[in-house]
Amino acid sequence: MEKTLGELAEFLGGVAVGDITTVITGVKGIDEAGTGDITFLANPKYMKFLETTAASAVIVSPDMNVPGRSLIKVDNPYLAFTKVVTIFSVGARDYFGVSPHAFVHPESQVDPECAVYPFVYIGKGAQVKKKAVLYPGVYLGDGAFVGEESILYPNVTIMDRCVIMNRVIIHGGTVIGADGFGFAHEGDKQVKFPQIGIVVIEDDVEIGSNCSIDRAALGETRIHRGVKMDNLVQIGHNVVVEEDSILVAQVGISGSTHIGKKVVLAGQAGLVGHITVGDGAIVTAKAGVYKDIAPGEVMSGFPMMPHKKWLRAMPVVAKLPELRREVDALSKRIEQLEKKATKA
Amino acid sequence: MEKTLGELAEFLGGVAVGDITTVITGVKGIDEAGTGDITFLANPKYMKFLETTAASAVIVSPDMNVPGRSLIKVDNPYLAFTKVVTIFSVGARDYFGVSPHAFVHPESQVDPECAVYPFVYIGKGAQVKKKAVLYPGVYLGDGAFVGEESILYPNVTIMDRCVIMNRVIIHGGTVIGADGFGFAHEGDKQVKFPQIGIVVIEDDVEIGSNCSIDRAALGETRIHRGVKMDNLVQIGHNVVVEEDSILVAQVGISGSTHIGKKVVLAGQAGLVGHITVGDGAIVTAKAGVYKDIAPGEVMSGFPMMPHKKWLRAMPVVAKLPELRREVDALSKRIEQLEKKATKA
Amino acid sequence: MEKTLGELAEFLGGVAVGDITTVITGVKGIDEAGTGDITFLANPKYMKFLETTAASAVIVSPDMNVPGRSLIKVDNPYLAFTKVVTIFSVGARDYFGVSPHAFVHPESQVDPECAVYPFVYIGKGAQVKKKAVLYPGVYLGDGAFVGEESILYPNVTIMDRCVIMNRVIIHGGTVIGADGFGFAHEGDKQVKFPQIGIVVIEDDVEIGSNCSIDRAALGETRIHRGVKMDNLVQIGHNVVVEEDSILVAQVGISGSTHIGKKVVLAGQAGLVGHITVGDGAIVTAKAGVYKDIAPGEVMSGFPMMPHKKWLRAMPVVAKLPELRREVDALSKRIEQLEKKATKA
Repeated sequence: MEKTLGELAEFLGGVAVGDITTVITGVKGIDEAGTGDITFLANPKYMKFLETTAASAVIVSPDMNVPGRSLIKVDNPYLAFTKVVTIFSVGARDYFGVSPHAFVHPESQVDPECAVYPFVYIGKGAQVKKKAVLYPGVYLGDGAFVGEESILYPNVTIMDRCVIMNRVIIHGGTVIGADGFGFAHEGDKQVKFPQIGIVVIEDDVEIGSNCSIDRAALGETRIHRGVKMDNLVQIGHNVVVEEDSILVAQVGISGSTHIGKKVVLAGQAGLVGHITVGDGAIVTAKAGVYKDIAPGEVMSGFPMMPHKKWLRAMPVVAKLPELRREVDALSKRIEQLEKKATKA
Repeated sequence: MEKTLGELAEFLGGVAVGDITTVITGVKGIDEAGTGDITFLANPKYMKFLETTAASAVIVSPDMNVPGRSLIKVDNPYLAFTKVVTIFSVGARDYFGVSPHAFVHPESQVDPECAVYPFVYIGKGAQVKKKAVLYPGVYLGDGAFVGEESILYPNVTIMDRCVIMNRVIIHGGTVIGADGFGFAHEGDKQVKFPQIGIVVIEDDVEIGSNCSIDRAALGETRIHRGVKMDNLVQIGHNVVVEEDSILVAQVGISGSTHIGKKVVLAGQAGLVGHITVGDGAIVTAKAGVYKDIAPGEVMSGFPMMPHKKWLRAMPVVAKLPELRREVDALSKRIEQLEKKATKA
Repeated sequence: MEKTLGELAEFLGGVAVGDITTVITGVKGIDEAGTGDITFLANPKYMKFLETTAASAVIVSPDMNVPGRSLIKVDNPYLAFTKVVTIFSVGARDYFGVSPHAFVHPESQVDPECAVYPFVYIGKGAQVKKKAVLYPGVYLGDGAFVGEESILYPNVTIMDRCVIMNRVIIHGGTVIGADGFGFAHEGDKQVKFPQIGIVVIEDDVEIGSNCSIDRAALGETRIHRGVKMDNLVQIGHNVVVEEDSILVAQVGISGSTHIGKKVVLAGQAGLVGHITVGDGAIVTAKAGVYKDIAPGEVMSGFPMMPHKKWLRAMPVVAKLPELRREVDALSKRIEQLEKKATKA
């Protein structure tokens, strides 16, 4: 792939600064780019590299000026760079059909324009739509569904009847539709509640590696359109995550909890079951969420509290021994005063 | 499947209220049930649905009365509903034997009445007992054992010599018997301690998806009868978990720790190694357990403290800035008093 | 295997105490060892077993004396025992070559002296070097590399172009090189940044089961020589972990964070992205790391603080209700004093 600075600026709807015939042949980070590479600057932490980078061009925000350097100025340099990386890196896929080393149940339906690798198992009544890609070791249970252009990376497990819609990406080792964790007590014994619901993953969702998303006890566990989930995330049965929410690595959500739209749950946050997190709420890293969160709220800490409160409280925690000592000292001074007052 | 209200009441040992000839054809949650469905009410949060549900019958506790609605009254509605769901949903399995697409070592022993799916690997000297089910991608190492009616879901790994007893359920992607994390130090270098012990999973244990249960360094890691484990749980080498304990998602237990009977470890709790948690103890979500817990104790927080203490302490944490300010104000008032006292 | 006490003492460079012709035929833990076994004592918790163990010999530190018991005295009993276990347990591997049930792309290079089990997938341009072992269900993407004597346990996924150097051990279910978690925002929509970098795992690294190590956005995610990683660990894109660091189970590291040499990150610790942890630093269990850590520092708690500070602060947290009450009481006493002072 080869593009000129001018062509890229036009593609991005940005302004080229410098020689528009400069040839760009690759994309790299600002600290490792060389001749022919285009890079970008968005995080101020990397500003120091702007002078020294060997890149042939840098995508920057409109207010930035670097004499003698070829630039493309755009409102959102990271987004622009994302688009450039995409055209430089995403190649055409080979939809080779079904490998003879895969196992495909005769009563399943697999679109011929797909890529089903060796050692994939497709169960009875399962459906695989156009341009779906199933990497080695993928398991598709009876009656499961994989929509168009969805990609299941190696060793992904989709249990029976679960639905993966279109343009979904699921990374290696993730398990969709294992039984939820539900037991009734009969005296000392725990009796398994059969988990007969399903999981639905809607369009344009991306799920990281080694996640666990349990099927509903009854009804559905549902991940709505556009949700992005990082690695090692735990989703209990009957959870709903609404559109465009972001779940960072190692988050855990207990059963029947409802996450609204555009919510952010940061890394290692944990949520109890049967609660509601409102649209646009943010839960910061490692927070322990034990009750509902209203829309737009930012919550932090374990147990959680409003983020601003937490920011003020935590420095005091670190200095509690001093506070403890101060109170002891005050107590003694009061004692002295009381003695004097009694004498007086 | 079709049952009358009267038949189900008899099956459950409960009392039918309303027309005992009402026909029940399915099971659903109270908010989605329709004609022909039976549902249940146990969580008071869902009480509002009792009037509006379209269900043909509801399983409730004996004290509940809903004029005009068909009911089954039982002491434990959730348990009763669990039993109804079980008879409505659990079908007969097809023990088709060993798929020709599986790899079975000639020196292994596999009961003919089993289900070994394509792409299963069964190692030398391994044993698979009657009515065991091994889904695609299961690996059974040399000398490993799977007991009667146990189910290993897709891509489960059982390393060599590990023992899975009877009626065990292990969900997708879980790894049993990988090496424990043990290294000796030789100067700067870390020398691997060969992990030559095994893992034993006793009868009626259920283990979630993508868990890691390490083999012992020497001896055994043992999960006793009836333990229920959620997803993404970490169990270090030589850990013992006794009967009927419950481990919720993302719990982590370090090496050689001993968990008693009927213990509950809630989500994301973490336990250091070489400690003992007594029978019936409860560790609440996200707790950090750094020392022994006596039987029956309830512990919370990070670092952990008795639950009641924690419940009292945490609200004060959230208001530490106010406490800090109050102490400063008191200090000033004391200063004033001291000045006055000196003058006087 | 059979060795005399004298032979073992010589092998270890230690001092034999007792009958040097005592025959040792096995290795066991001190609480389960019997006749013929050698065991060791390092953790004082197990001292009580020293008198009662049925072991034929015990490896101890030089200062220990147990009349009537055969001993080997060495400076580091755990290291010595590790070496003894190694010679008693590690057998010769069978490098049987490539199973006819594996899928090996014709344009890959696989050394004939290797062990590639059934249901392994080796992609186009991939390389597998001498004495590498790939267990069932391993996926090796196009252009991936596995060095000499490296072992990939069942269902390990190595995505395209990732590099696993020599003598690396990766336990079951781990995913190396899935896409990092990177999205640009375009209005409400999230646009995937193509993750075109790789992962490099250097010599002598060991990685636990069900870990997720993401490929770089651009450039590399790199785990340097000798790093040891436990189970269920999350490593974000472009993270670097330098030589000989130790990452305990369920640790999570966000993107672009740099971990120095000989760092210890204890269980369930979480680190934000784009920070630096200096050589030799220690982060204790469950800590929340939100900024750089200087070399050699020990940090604890959530949010993290210096370990010593944390040790002093936490006991005060548990007693905050008392402190709260004391301050209230002081306030009342001051009020009394103030009233008196006003009157006076």
